[in-house]
Formats: sequence, structure tokens, C-alpha cells
Amino acid sequence: MCNACVIENVRQQAQSRRSFLARSAAAGAAALAASVVSARETLAQSSGKVVDLTHTFDENFPTFDGKPGIEMEKVVDFKTNGYTIYKLTIFEHSGTHIDAPLHFTADGTSVADLAPENLVCPLCILDIKARAKEDPNAMVTKADIDAWVSANGAIPKGACVAMNSGWSAKVGEPGYRTLPDGKFAFPGFSKEAVDLLAEAGAAAIAVDTLSLDPGSSQDFIVHNTWLPGGRYGIENVANLDLLPVKGATLFVGAPKHRGGTGGPARVMATF
Amino acid sequence: MCNACVIENVRQQAQSRRSFLARSAAAGAAALAASVVSARETLAQSSGKVVDLTHTFDENFPTFDGKPGIEMEKVVDFKTNGYTIYKLTIFEHSGTHIDAPLHFTADGTSVADLAPENLVCPLCILDIKARAKEDPNAMVTKADIDAWVSANGAIPKGACVAMNSGWSAKVGEPGYRTLPDGKFAFPGFSKEAVDLLAEAGAAAIAVDTLSLDPGSSQDFIVHNTWLPGGRYGIENVANLDLLPVKGATLFVGAPKHRGGTGGPARVMATF
Repeated sequence: MCNACVIENVRQQAQSRRSFLARSAAAGAAALAASVVSARETLAQSSGKVVDLTHTFDENFPTFDGKPGIEMEKVVDFKTNGYTIYKLTIFEHSGTHIDAPLHFTADGTSVADLAPENLVCPLCILDIKARAKEDPNAMVTKADIDAWVSANGAIPKGACVAMNSGWSAKVGEPGYRTLPDGKFAFPGFSKEAVDLLAEAGAAAIAVDTLSLDPGSSQDFIVHNTWLPGGRYGIENVANLDLLPVKGATLFVGAPKHRGGTGGPARVMATF
Repeated sequence: MCNACVIENVRQQAQSRRSFLARSAAAGAAALAASVVSARETLAQSSGKVVDLTHTFDENFPTFDGKPGIEMEKVVDFKTNGYTIYKLTIFEHSGTHIDAPLHFTADGTSVADLAPENLVCPLCILDIKARAKEDPNAMVTKADIDAWVSANGAIPKGACVAMNSGWSAKVGEPGYRTLPDGKFAFPGFSKEAVDLLAEAGAAAIAVDTLSLDPGSSQDFIVHNTWLPGGRYGIENVANLDLLPVKGATLFVGAPKHRGGTGGPARVMATF
């Protein structure tokens, strides 16, 4: 875009902003709803790319308990009615989805009440693919975070920190979930890592596997550490290889059903 | 006209439209998304605000057919299991939600196949609140679009154009859906308006009411005009008053169930 165009765009945006501010003022205090929130100063400025981090969701998508996460029933049909509607039966924690604090607490924040400013946030990606090739239950460690910070600077407040273990490439195979002996096996975060990320003020963690905890976990310690603090998680993300490890902005299209503990989400990033 | 009659009209229209469907299919195939796509140059640069355009969804949220759009059943309970999961039963076209081309076509683009670059897009807002106060079936007209363009410049390619009729303030009242006599009544787009927006290359239209068509529509002409062209719609959006009429970037967290015709979505904007 030429400089003159940039300046014209900025001018027009400023005009639009001024007229908006005038209307806001006139609308009074009632208009100052909690729906407008401050986003992070660290939001990336878009360079013109959108990456979809969401797997397509169907009855064959792998789930933790092995049962279908979604069923679809056609209840209105185009052939007879001129339009189509499906009835969906969905188990919240399936597909590319959110874990809200309420998933692992008696009365924590529901998925509908997650702060919107934490759903549009800087994305930091930790690449553990090499280690995950050797150990299907590899974990993100404190050392992985220290190395990222050394190379890229501090984890931004309110960031989402994602594990890229390379696991999303296995999503159509039994190995996404279990070893040939049937034991759960996939990478995840360690407790020491999420303790450090909580201290750094991260808002979310994301994994390209079925669970925030590795498959070998016996106690869901990462879920039990991370979620009760009011933070959220994202499981089964795709396409992390298509993003820079620093500098992308994540958009987390979390569902907003009242009192929900999580659910399938559309997750995208711009960079 | 009763609801059943309206539905019959839609069916008859669909039959008379069969010749268009081959072209729709071609448009749908063309929209198949790559994972990395170019976003619009016209994307707004964030000034640090996030506005949530999504209503909280529960069994009381108004629906077109008057039946609950969502039901939640607790299938795992924190008290006994240490975590909670709900089973959700959802009718696709309820809550703040997407209408994909497949909703009104035999084989158009499904909600899972909407191009990601059209889900992160410039937002243009047409304010028809004054007219909607006088006429509950007020429509967005060609003149509304002409006036917006005169004040703000051309509609950006790939934009979402939203109607702000002030209706979202009524969402808890019967008047959101019907008049006291039981007839559907709410604002929507006109055919002439969506014809113009299609020509301008808009990707989506959005309404703060139950339907892209006004409540008085007998033929769903806006659905039947807009969606078969490979474009999508968003219904029941909230909080448009909190945004500038130009310059915001919309994030449309469309669900991604394979072959879906639409569904509840998380819709947010930055400006």
C-alpha cells in the first residue's frame, strides 16, 4: 500500500473513531458495557495471513474416551423443505475445544464467562517435536520456556502458550491417542511448566494433542493446576507449523453456552 | 401467513431454483479453504479494544421456531468425578450463529468449508435504529448502503456488512420475535440491498435479529439470494452499538463440524 493510501486510511479511521466517540458519549454510562475491554498492547499487527488452527469435527475425530464427540441428525431437509438444519449432539470436550476453569472446579469460570480480552491474545509456540519423536509422552518443561524466553523475550501477559509436538499430523491414526498396547500416549505440559506460565501471567495454554496433560498422566495434575486459577486450555489444535513461534495473534472462538465447562471452538491466528 | 405456510413457500421456491444449484455447487467448491490464506489489506489495525458480539446461549434464548435451541445434560459431575462435562443438544440455527450456503442449497459450501480469510474481515455497520423504532419489519435498503458509502468510502471486498436495528436490546422480550398478535416482526435486509452487497464483493451479512430476512418475509428471499452465491450470514449479533461503523475487524468463530449448515458461533471484533 502506498504512503498516501496509508495516511488516507489512518485519517478515515480517525474520523470514524471520532464519530464513534461522540455517539458513545451521547449514549451515556449505559453504553459502557463490560463487553468492551482492553486488549493486550502486545497484539500482533496483521501482515495479511490467517491460519486456521481448528480440525474439522466429525464422528470419527479422536476423543479421550473413544466415543464419538459429535452426532448429526438432519431434522429439516432441503429436498422437501427448501433448507436444511441439523440437530447436533456434542460432548463438550471433543474436537478442537476449550477447557474452561469450570471443567475442573466446583464453581470456577464457565466458558461463557471467559474474559473476551483473553480470547484475542498473543500466541507463543514451544516446539518439542524432536523430543516427542523419541518419547510419545514427552512434556513441555521449564527449560523449554526458558529457551523460548532467551530467544524471544518475556512471555507477554495474557498470552496463549502452545505446545507444538507434531502430534496433529497423526490425527487420523490410532497413534494420536494410544500405543499399540492400548495405553494412552501423547505429549502434554508438565506441572513445572504451567507453574512458570501462571507466574508469567499467561491466560491460556494450548496443545496439539488430546489433553493438556501427557497421555501417561495418572492424576491430571496440569488440568488441576492450570484451570482452577481462572485460566483456560485449548486441546487438539492444528497447523501450528504454519505460524511463527512469536508474533501471531490468536483468536479463540470459544462457545458461549451459559454455565458450560468448555466446548468445540473455532481457533484462528493472524500474523 | 402462518409459519407452516412460510415454510411451504420456501419449499416451492427451492423447487423453482433447481437450475441455479449447479452454479452454487461451483461457487462452493471454489470457496474450499486452504489453511493459510491472505487476509484483507483493509483489516483494521487494533487500537486495543475487543467487543464481544455474541449473546450468551441458553435454553431461553429466542429461536425462530420457538423451541429451545440448546439443551445441556451433565454427564460427568465434579462432585463425584473431580471434573464436569455436559452433553449438548443444539439445533444449528440458534443463538448467535452462522448461516452457511449449505443451509439454503442442496450442495453449497458447508460451515466447515467457509474460507478462513472471510472469517477475519472488515466490518461495516449500517444503523437503521431510527426506522426500526417506527417499523418492526424495517429493512436495510439500497439507500442505506449508498449513504454509508458516501460517508465512509467503498464497502471493502470480503467485508461483513451488519445491520444495527437496535433489536438486540429486546432479546429478553417477546417483542424480539413477534408482535402481540403473534406475527413475526423484526428488521432484516432487503433483496435490493443484498444484490448490491453481492456486487460489491462482501463476504457476509449480519443482523441483530433472528433472521437475515425481516419477520414479515413470506419467501426468505434474502436467504435465497445471498447464501446460494457462496456467501454466509450471521444472525442474533449483540453489541453493535459499541463499535465504529467503519474500521473494526470482525473475527467469526464459526463452528467446523463436517457438512454442517451453520451453527452457534463466537463473534468478536477489534477496533
